[in-house]
Amino acid sequence: MPVSQPIRLILLAFILYGGSAKAGQSGDMLSGWRDAPAKTALIGFVSRITDSAGELFVPPQQRIAVFDNDGTLWPEAPWPVPVEFVFFRIRQLAPDHPEWHEQYPYKAVVSNDVDWLSANSRAAFRELSPVAQAGMTTGQYEQYVRQFIATARHPDTGLRYSEMLYAPMLELIKFLQNNQFKVYVVSGGDLDFIRAYAPAFLGIPRENIIGSHPAYGLKVNGTDISIVRKPESGAVNVGGFKVLNIHLHIGQRPVMAFGNSDGDLQMLRYAAANEQPFLAAVIEHDDGERELDDRSGAESLLAEAEERGWLRISLKRDFVSMFIGDED
Amino acid sequence: MPVSQPIRLILLAFILYGGSAKAGQSGDMLSGWRDAPAKTALIGFVSRITDSAGELFVPPQQRIAVFDNDGTLWPEAPWPVPVEFVFFRIRQLAPDHPEWHEQYPYKAVVSNDVDWLSANSRAAFRELSPVAQAGMTTGQYEQYVRQFIATARHPDTGLRYSEMLYAPMLELIKFLQNNQFKVYVVSGGDLDFIRAYAPAFLGIPRENIIGSHPAYGLKVNGTDISIVRKPESGAVNVGGFKVLNIHLHIGQRPVMAFGNSDGDLQMLRYAAANEQPFLAAVIEHDDGERELDDRSGAESLLAEAEERGWLRISLKRDFVSMFIGDED
Repeated sequence: MPVSQPIRLILLAFILYGGSAKAGQSGDMLSGWRDAPAKTALIGFVSRITDSAGELFVPPQQRIAVFDNDGTLWPEAPWPVPVEFVFFRIRQLAPDHPEWHEQYPYKAVVSNDVDWLSANSRAAFRELSPVAQAGMTTGQYEQYVRQFIATARHPDTGLRYSEMLYAPMLELIKFLQNNQFKVYVVSGGDLDFIRAYAPAFLGIPRENIIGSHPAYGLKVNGTDISIVRKPESGAVNVGGFKVLNIHLHIGQRPVMAFGNSDGDLQMLRYAAANEQPFLAAVIEHDDGERELDDRSGAESLLAEAEERGWLRISLKRDFVSMFIGDED
Repeated sequence: MPVSQPIRLILLAFILYGGSAKAGQSGDMLSGWRDAPAKTALIGFVSRITDSAGELFVPPQQRIAVFDNDGTLWPEAPWPVPVEFVFFRIRQLAPDHPEWHEQYPYKAVVSNDVDWLSANSRAAFRELSPVAQAGMTTGQYEQYVRQFIATARHPDTGLRYSEMLYAPMLELIKFLQNNQFKVYVVSGGDLDFIRAYAPAFLGIPRENIIGSHPAYGLKVNGTDISIVRKPESGAVNVGGFKVLNIHLHIGQRPVMAFGNSDGDLQMLRYAAANEQPFLAAVIEHDDGERELDDRSGAESLLAEAEERGWLRISLKRDFVSMFIGDED
């Protein structure tokens, strides 16, 4: 049964902020996870490292958990959500640019040519990204992102992006925070993009977002100073750069790390080299019925997870319901 | 009366972790501040922005306070403490390098030629810094820093560096944290250097340190991954870069900012452009008897503080006692 938007938002607010506010090791918060090995492993790990009398105790200040974003907290098909945002912005700007109707990649975006975009999403993103956002202050950029998150709809599901978050993963984030974890997003996506919605929709504060970003500049206007997004790339947060940026921003090895593609492999290796107990987990897109059955781009990650016994989280097997917006 | 080291450490622990553990707006925690306008302004500001019924209320997630380090939380004369650490490392390495006894800048460091070093500290630092630390993992580097902080003595006072922290500033940090501020160090000094002692001695967690740093690399050894400090500079966190790095690491404008030199001016301007209430404060080195009477390098900052009515904190007028190690 479809659920109205106000009810969905109430449910979302309940999941993020409601329920038991007490910190604790109870697994009741993971009711969105099926009773299967992944849930048992997650609850067991958190129980062991929060048991102050146990051998595997990890003090709160060292409880760092890192999550990839696209493909880990919401889908990244047909392309990562920050790419869809750039297309959204191009469509917003199109009325002032009639020439875009004849000129690729603009034409493909304006006419919503999904086949062309699927084959060329990366190159289109690189070309269009500066057009879509350069020269804005970070505050202006965030306003557009919030508009996108609240109104744009996913091309396959028709859900708003705020409804596309994986309900069990949001539960897990809250569960870890209740167990005194500091939870970070470590994404190849845009830093300011994620910050625009993370506090409200992920329950993760702005300072706990690590992402790619354009070169930044200072805009000085009288006594005002603001941050401007320049056309050039500043930092790309994938692969080994995720590890370097975890050092730069957090300064400790994570004890829990979650990813879904080969760009997350170094981050999981870094967590797995912890002298503390650690849990490295791979999200597998294996649910063609409810989401997608496609693990391309994750071959190396899955092979190493298999070899080293890292936790594998199956969307098909482990998630009771998939998206926040599905819940009723 | 001099106080023994064990007593000093107990006092330090008391200041950092003791006293009232309850969050609140009470100014009793600032007993190390003289009853003067600065104390009144600090307590008044915190009272107003934490009053949930008041017009100037700032919610906890936006309570960001940033502190410069050298010259703000401890002295930066005769040169910044991270520079002294490099000299400390050169002296450690000197027995294996007899040639250094004849070769500047090594000779000046090994023979402790304070006059030469005072005139050339910046150039000497640039040349010696890679020799002192390049190629180490960040973990190895931090071990040397902790050894330095615990054992090396300041050339003027003879105190250990762990005893040279300004007692009233540590009180202020704790006061802000008790009022649900997230307190950050934003320093031109080395990131890993500050992280090595900040949790224990400042009560500030590793992830809340923003600093300069060398270029980093990944060191892969089997399944282990660690972070290596390279010889080249990676980022210099002064002036406008402090603002950009506050955006990168925190993602919000601070509501309180503390600095002491012209390298902090942009950071204070950034806080002062907050749409929220803000407090920008300048620490003035005006106490020749207990520390130093020298405001060189702070001319622009002090002029703007005067013009814009920013808070001026006088070491002479406002601090009951100066250093943690002085207290009895």
